[in-house]
Amino acid sequence: MRAWNEIAIVRYEGGAPSLAQDVVIAECPFEIRLDGQPYASVMAMPEKLDDLAIGLLYGEGAIETAADVASVAIDEARGQIAVTRVHSRAVSPEDRVRTTGFGLGSTPKRQLDAAPLPVEGRDPLQASDIVALMDEFNARSQLFRDTGAVHSCCLCAGETRLFADDVGRHNALDKVIGASLRLAFDRAAAALLTTGRVSTEILIKTAKAGIPTLISRSAPTDRAVALARSSGMTLVGFARGQRFNVYAGEERIR
Amino acid sequence: MRAWNEIAIVRYEGGAPSLAQDVVIAECPFEIRLDGQPYASVMAMPEKLDDLAIGLLYGEGAIETAADVASVAIDEARGQIAVTRVHSRAVSPEDRVRTTGFGLGSTPKRQLDAAPLPVEGRDPLQASDIVALMDEFNARSQLFRDTGAVHSCCLCAGETRLFADDVGRHNALDKVIGASLRLAFDRAAAALLTTGRVSTEILIKTAKAGIPTLISRSAPTDRAVALARSSGMTLVGFARGQRFNVYAGEERIR
Repeated sequence: MRAWNEIAIVRYEGGAPSLAQDVVIAECPFEIRLDGQPYASVMAMPEKLDDLAIGLLYGEGAIETAADVASVAIDEARGQIAVTRVHSRAVSPEDRVRTTGFGLGSTPKRQLDAAPLPVEGRDPLQASDIVALMDEFNARSQLFRDTGAVHSCCLCAGETRLFADDVGRHNALDKVIGASLRLAFDRAAAALLTTGRVSTEILIKTAKAGIPTLISRSAPTDRAVALARSSGMTLVGFARGQRFNVYAGEERIR
Repeated sequence: MRAWNEIAIVRYEGGAPSLAQDVVIAECPFEIRLDGQPYASVMAMPEKLDDLAIGLLYGEGAIETAADVASVAIDEARGQIAVTRVHSRAVSPEDRVRTTGFGLGSTPKRQLDAAPLPVEGRDPLQASDIVALMDEFNARSQLFRDTGAVHSCCLCAGETRLFADDVGRHNALDKVIGASLRLAFDRAAAALLTTGRVSTEILIKTAKAGIPTLISRSAPTDRAVALARSSGMTLVGFARGQRFNVYAGEERIR
């Protein structure tokens, strides 16, 4: 399955039409199954689907570590991602996520109302590092600029980078968190970079994964800022070129 | 309840910090209740909440016209939007939408798999009108540019404009569709303008509302393009300044 397709379109410029080729992102429906039962429906770019499923299940609390996962089987033709747990158990209808995945989350209201755990960064952050990380991130999120339909996330710690694209902000985040579980990545020393807006759900997912630093090209909401401040996280927005805004945790930045 | 807040932040430019004020969008959790029972949890910008609830329930098929709605009561303090139908009936747990609303949809998989109805436009579209409508739309979606966290939609027919902003693409669309139901607006003669990406769900919601023309500042996905082509809709993307791309229905454009 390809992550994008080229299609023929008509391009207008100054009132004049011309034929052109355009790259559009592939968006496919997948059913995530857990222990043999339907769990969630997601619309996603068909890439890193195992990480997507693991990250989503982790965010929902259905698994705690990668060691809880016995197997992940992807059936692209049927549009299924089947995850089995080491200690499999019945999934109640109440636990199921009805639809999720296109730029969207599934966080239940009880989680949205709760304050996230304290997730304070251990080390100071250099302002010059924020600029350099975003430069590198922008160079890599080429697909985003080419098609305009993709969000990207990158989890950075030391020299390690976990990168993912998707049609949805939430999917891209689930993918990098899923990869970090699989690779036993040190999230407590990491910064998460995202092209997307920082909503409450994005903030909570990041905090829940124990990532103390969140840097976005885009804007946070008021509630995401309040949650970041109360949890001790560092939240940076509008990180573009030499500029960025610090919404929370400014005392960590040198 | 205010739709946005001003907060104190630290702004870095070329490595130097300074104190600044920044406008951030308000994002609030609401429970949509239907006939006295919980129906959906949404994160939304607290504005046009009645239209949001009506539009969301219409998109889900819980109501067919505004005449099905007996009352809408908004309790901001408790975060509830209570809708009662003229012919109220029990809401089964299967019908409930667990969480929705921040840049996200709730369309069940069975709807995502189904092709939308034919929604062909009656009249030709002038290329100059597409440019002029988007110019006007961009001027109006100021909040989007100021804060970077808002998506806007505008439903246009003749001289009438229904405009809405929200933290989520889907919410903004639900709001203008909700308003169009309330006002008996002629959607079959309308164009929908959006700042957001056109996913399958956005395309299906627009088609289901009988709107034949969808124009976005941003990109569509491959599946949204395919659905627009099969349903006879006109789909325009990357509409910026004098330029736009026609992904479907180019024969209607003069």
